[in-house]
Amino acid sequence: METVSTNTAHGGTQGVYKHASRETGTDMTFSVFVPPHADGAKLPVVWYLSGLTCTHANVTEKGEYRRLCAELGLIFVAPDTSPRGEDVADDADKAYDFGLGAGFYVDATQEPFAKHYRMWSYVTDELPGLIAENFPADMDRQSIMGHSMGGHGALTIGLTFPDRYKAVSAFAPIVAPSQVPWGHKALPGYLGDDKAAWRKHDAVALIEDGARVDALLVDQGEADNFLAEQLKPQLLDAACAKAGIDLTLRMQPGYDHSYYFISTFMEDHLSWHAKRLG
Amino acid sequence: METVSTNTAHGGTQGVYKHASRETGTDMTFSVFVPPHADGAKLPVVWYLSGLTCTHANVTEKGEYRRLCAELGLIFVAPDTSPRGEDVADDADKAYDFGLGAGFYVDATQEPFAKHYRMWSYVTDELPGLIAENFPADMDRQSIMGHSMGGHGALTIGLTFPDRYKAVSAFAPIVAPSQVPWGHKALPGYLGDDKAAWRKHDAVALIEDGARVDALLVDQGEADNFLAEQLKPQLLDAACAKAGIDLTLRMQPGYDHSYYFISTFMEDHLSWHAKRLG
Repeated sequence: METVSTNTAHGGTQGVYKHASRETGTDMTFSVFVPPHADGAKLPVVWYLSGLTCTHANVTEKGEYRRLCAELGLIFVAPDTSPRGEDVADDADKAYDFGLGAGFYVDATQEPFAKHYRMWSYVTDELPGLIAENFPADMDRQSIMGHSMGGHGALTIGLTFPDRYKAVSAFAPIVAPSQVPWGHKALPGYLGDDKAAWRKHDAVALIEDGARVDALLVDQGEADNFLAEQLKPQLLDAACAKAGIDLTLRMQPGYDHSYYFISTFMEDHLSWHAKRLG
Repeated sequence: METVSTNTAHGGTQGVYKHASRETGTDMTFSVFVPPHADGAKLPVVWYLSGLTCTHANVTEKGEYRRLCAELGLIFVAPDTSPRGEDVADDADKAYDFGLGAGFYVDATQEPFAKHYRMWSYVTDELPGLIAENFPADMDRQSIMGHSMGGHGALTIGLTFPDRYKAVSAFAPIVAPSQVPWGHKALPGYLGDDKAAWRKHDAVALIEDGARVDALLVDQGEADNFLAEQLKPQLLDAACAKAGIDLTLRMQPGYDHSYYFISTFMEDHLSWHAKRLG
């Protein structure tokens, strides 16, 4: 692991790091904020998964999480959203919603993506190992959140590993990719036409198929351009109601899909995570 | 005035606006955050002047000021740092510290800069008029802060109009451009060789020449690469001590010159301004 940069912020250290990933076969960059802490202390870890077109940098610069992470003693980890590099396959038309910057947190089985697009294993297995090894992280206290495509990632990963992630929340998540255009492009593109494979990467389908967490927190802007066509939080609401999952779904009037929205509610999410992380 | 974008954030509105400036003879872009407020209310205005290479966008995205401005009821205005456009003169070598992105908050008298580089009049006269006209601003309650070159701007403007700006503070300001390399390039470049003209754009010289404010707040990172050669806060400290200005100069161990530093201490500055703005 190589240190790209570190900056003192809010009494802690905001770092950006790079490593050669065995899962993606590429260099991967990620950011980690370590709050002020006592020597030898082990701190809970909040994972933040980013949305389409983003890298680690968007939330690191615009997420406004450091003040509260410093106050609450939380490590904050932000991975990239896809493998990158000259030999990494991209969408044929270089669209923003598939290929580079749009890994959808799956392990691709379809060519030409299967070789590098292994974001599920990267985020749930390889990167946690690296974090445990290099930071004062208490890996028994992890939680996960994300935005849009990263909200999809947070929900599907949280529902798949309910014991590992003590809190799961999302900003404007894609809750049912099997039922919306973004997913109709990404899921067959990465996973092929077998819809059983899609269901493991669709929060609503996972819940329908029996996956459970105690509670979820979702904020959704009512002025979000993607709300009606791509996000459809009502599908998550219905699935949670049926399954007995305590979903707090907050529709936020006036808010759009941007980091102005995320940064406004970041504090509520971090407080909610901290309470569950103990 | 044309609206470039507005986003709801922290209950208020973060806007970006553009207008044809009479001072610079170019289009100028700036950002304004208006916090939630009662209909008809007039709110105090905090001016934020940015540093070398920056536009309005840096602090707007990375400054982390909205939460507290919303809480304290402050309008936050961020102008650009220079005129821009194809016909605007730039540094001969396109260096970062003179010309485009480096207006130094002066009205240039030297060719080829005199035509467009009128940032002093733009920031102290033209833009305040536009703000008064278009936003719920109480222009009897203004304050000013800035970073680096913008800290220089905030200090010199605040010292020149002590009745207008109720609070003046800075992050890592250039306190004495007449005595450091950045100023040795910019001041003759914009103002010529008459050192009397320089003194009106040098905070330490202004104080030596009799300018007064009650109090100043300055934060300075000890790990700032520019500290020893360009910033020299000890010169401001000495001038304020001699003049009886209540300077709070806080040296911050570990902090550099970046927005990670600014965003950490933004809250302290806004609170300090709010107290003085009443």
